[in-house]
Amino acid sequence: MNLDNICVVLVNTTHPGNIGGVARAMKNMGLSSLVLVEPKIFPSPDATARASGATDLLDHASIVGTLQEAVADMQLVVGTSARGRHIPWPIMDPHEMAGVVAKSQLGAVEAKVALVFGREDRGLTNEELHLCHIHVHIPSVESFSSLNIAAAVQVLAYECRMAFLAGERAGSQAPQWGTEWDADLAEHKELELLYDHLERVLVEIDFLDPAKPRQLMPRLRRLFQRALLDKIEVNVLRGILTHVQKK
Amino acid sequence: MNLDNICVVLVNTTHPGNIGGVARAMKNMGLSSLVLVEPKIFPSPDATARASGATDLLDHASIVGTLQEAVADMQLVVGTSARGRHIPWPIMDPHEMAGVVAKSQLGAVEAKVALVFGREDRGLTNEELHLCHIHVHIPSVESFSSLNIAAAVQVLAYECRMAFLAGERAGSQAPQWGTEWDADLAEHKELELLYDHLERVLVEIDFLDPAKPRQLMPRLRRLFQRALLDKIEVNVLRGILTHVQKK
Repeated sequence: MNLDNICVVLVNTTHPGNIGGVARAMKNMGLSSLVLVEPKIFPSPDATARASGATDLLDHASIVGTLQEAVADMQLVVGTSARGRHIPWPIMDPHEMAGVVAKSQLGAVEAKVALVFGREDRGLTNEELHLCHIHVHIPSVESFSSLNIAAAVQVLAYECRMAFLAGERAGSQAPQWGTEWDADLAEHKELELLYDHLERVLVEIDFLDPAKPRQLMPRLRRLFQRALLDKIEVNVLRGILTHVQKK
Repeated sequence: MNLDNICVVLVNTTHPGNIGGVARAMKNMGLSSLVLVEPKIFPSPDATARASGATDLLDHASIVGTLQEAVADMQLVVGTSARGRHIPWPIMDPHEMAGVVAKSQLGAVEAKVALVFGREDRGLTNEELHLCHIHVHIPSVESFSSLNIAAAVQVLAYECRMAFLAGERAGSQAPQWGTEWDADLAEHKELELLYDHLERVLVEIDFLDPAKPRQLMPRLRRLFQRALLDKIEVNVLRGILTHVQKK
């Protein structure tokens, strides 16, 4: 496991001080790659002050326009979530999440992982959460559940580091699915092309009514996201869709 | 285990904003008792701002003159420590520490526990550390090892809460995906009908050659099996297959 494969993505962060706090928490835990999706104010003296020496992470932070862009090459996308979304999605606690991240590093190719954090006041949208493979919830008190974003990054980065250190101590762990796999995990952009293709075919065969989509695509997306599709599986599914279209 | 038995003690904190951040992290994780040993500036608007609604903890914080006074009634005192003190002392990681805290709650009388955090710039003195039963070290990167104090409280409080929740769960099972689901898991026979249906359609659209099946069905089966399909998902997939056949 290599912590360099894990990046932190912050979506529309409002307070630059929080970006600095995030950078410090990351560097403390050995993470180095920070991606900012449309930050409100950045760079900023507040970010630098709160970073407390982790300014190298701020200097090298990528700034992008959309979450899709941020995770396009990622193979495991983890979204932070409050409970109680419209469609239930598998939710892990941070310790379980770190276990999945650790296992994703044991294949022939170590997976590229994104930990995605939403806005200070309202987190990630449902659409953003549906881009993720895993949702993680820090088990806070229900009546006072919103963590500071740097504190949330601290907890997830801490669990990743604990898993990393445990892996170093153990020498080896069971890989992704408890056994060697035969293909690398698909990248986000490959999955999105699959979902686009699937949606087109469902409309063509009159299964999906664009005027009344209901929850069909979110349900199918949830199914495939939690299965963590590999590249061969994506090719097989797209091959099936293409054959359906030919008929 | 009762989280009310755990208090957080901050020694000579310099920045009042940090005291607010600590209060917020505590309240998020279900801790409520805050003790301040000679804070430099308190109360303060900075503390209130960073507490972000955890002002009740600030209002009820005890202020004392010495660490001895703060821990006088405590039965388990945990000190946060950097590595490499003059005299080696057993050092636990936060997860191990939480295990000891949880066990301290299982006697006839639940232990009163103090988690002690030192100054922002130089932590606890050796004399103060020697008042503690346990030293805990958050396994940070050696070259950038100093966590923000609120981040450190967040990690220890998180591990205490995880131990608390594990204790509550003991005897019962966590739900399937860590959250309430909206449909029951599919039964084996429903899955087999799905795979039969899928195979027929793949032959009909000339994607699967029965004379040369290769590993196609095993791959698709593996994908859907590991996703643990629920009943609604099986119905959706079979509906799609039926629509493909109609075309």
